[in-house]
Amino acid sequence: MRKVFQAELHQIGEGLIEISSLVIDAIENSTTAFAAADLEAAEQVIAADARIDFLQNDLDERAIDVLALQGPVASDLRMIVGSLRMSASLERMGDLARHISQLTRLRYPNQVIPAQLQATFAELAALDIVIARKVAELLDTRDLELVNDILTAKASISKLHKTVFSAMGSPDWHETPATTVDVTLASRYFERFGDHGVSVARKVSYLVTGEWQPEDFLAG
Amino acid sequence: MRKVFQAELHQIGEGLIEISSLVIDAIENSTTAFAAADLEAAEQVIAADARIDFLQNDLDERAIDVLALQGPVASDLRMIVGSLRMSASLERMGDLARHISQLTRLRYPNQVIPAQLQATFAELAALDIVIARKVAELLDTRDLELVNDILTAKASISKLHKTVFSAMGSPDWHETPATTVDVTLASRYFERFGDHGVSVARKVSYLVTGEWQPEDFLAG
Repeated sequence: MRKVFQAELHQIGEGLIEISSLVIDAIENSTTAFAAADLEAAEQVIAADARIDFLQNDLDERAIDVLALQGPVASDLRMIVGSLRMSASLERMGDLARHISQLTRLRYPNQVIPAQLQATFAELAALDIVIARKVAELLDTRDLELVNDILTAKASISKLHKTVFSAMGSPDWHETPATTVDVTLASRYFERFGDHGVSVARKVSYLVTGEWQPEDFLAG
Repeated sequence: MRKVFQAELHQIGEGLIEISSLVIDAIENSTTAFAAADLEAAEQVIAADARIDFLQNDLDERAIDVLALQGPVASDLRMIVGSLRMSASLERMGDLARHISQLTRLRYPNQVIPAQLQATFAELAALDIVIARKVAELLDTRDLELVNDILTAKASISKLHKTVFSAMGSPDWHETPATTVDVTLASRYFERFGDHGVSVARKVSYLVTGEWQPEDFLAG
């Protein structure tokens, strides 16, 4: 019985890793399509998001089954409840990658981002990719050094996000309102992607160390 | 033992109702402050959000304790897991009300929304308040008629959200980029508030009917 239980816990962990690897694909492909105004690639990201949603549902169902059949306690229980929360964050990261591709589709064949901010958005994209990769690695290795890397990347995103808003508030900004709307939404999507990565990282950190930071562990 | 368990389940339900009533206060006060450019009222909403976060953590801790000590199965288990998800949505609704108040604070003593869109945002505010109230009532009564009302309100929000974006894309839009940014963010916050309300409503619906709609029940 205990062996079956451990196998089930292991499978839930593997499920999270699988979803996180699809989230890496999603953000890599979405940001590449975004930078290149590549409609076909954007459409693929949008279509692929259904797979992430499916895997999340499947994982959550298995987690609930384990709760019902095994009645886990203590750290095992925390791990399963944590998995339900982490899967929700990963699913949301997939949604945000999809939203970025939806902006690409909406403005095709034009670029979403005007020339003066493209380098900034390239940095934002690179940081979101770093976060997605490190989240996947963290779920696999539980190496808490990675949590610091993720927090550092998130801090850089916050700075860039402010840079974007400053640019739009400057007298040199002569873009159309439609572009201003798109840049605002895009910057928000890139930022929220990082937030959810941080949320997963903090949950893993809690599960490994047992140090209780309710605002981290339980945050949406 | 069974009696204790039922009392604990009941308390979790009461906890959700309590949080939902604070979410009503948050959105009512936040949107009133937003419309009136009332800094003091906005500050109060921002400060009050900590209480929602605290109650969510507290509820989640109790839910995890019930899982550990009672090992619930079947519909009781679903109810507790559902509570963990619904509390996360309610907490996020509180965050979004806070974000609306942060915009109020940022632009004080000016209005965030230009005159031509104030009536639209008043409608958005009224619909978010409807959703918050009906979510609280639904959690209390489990009357599924309320789910339809919530979905209807959400559909109206989506239409208004599109109206806002159309206005910003029209040749008649002569606001500053900073205003365009603010209106974009505000419209998104009002829309996401409604989305989370729908998410709670669908979970309650599932818990009452047992009809399985994974994309609804398990969505973030």
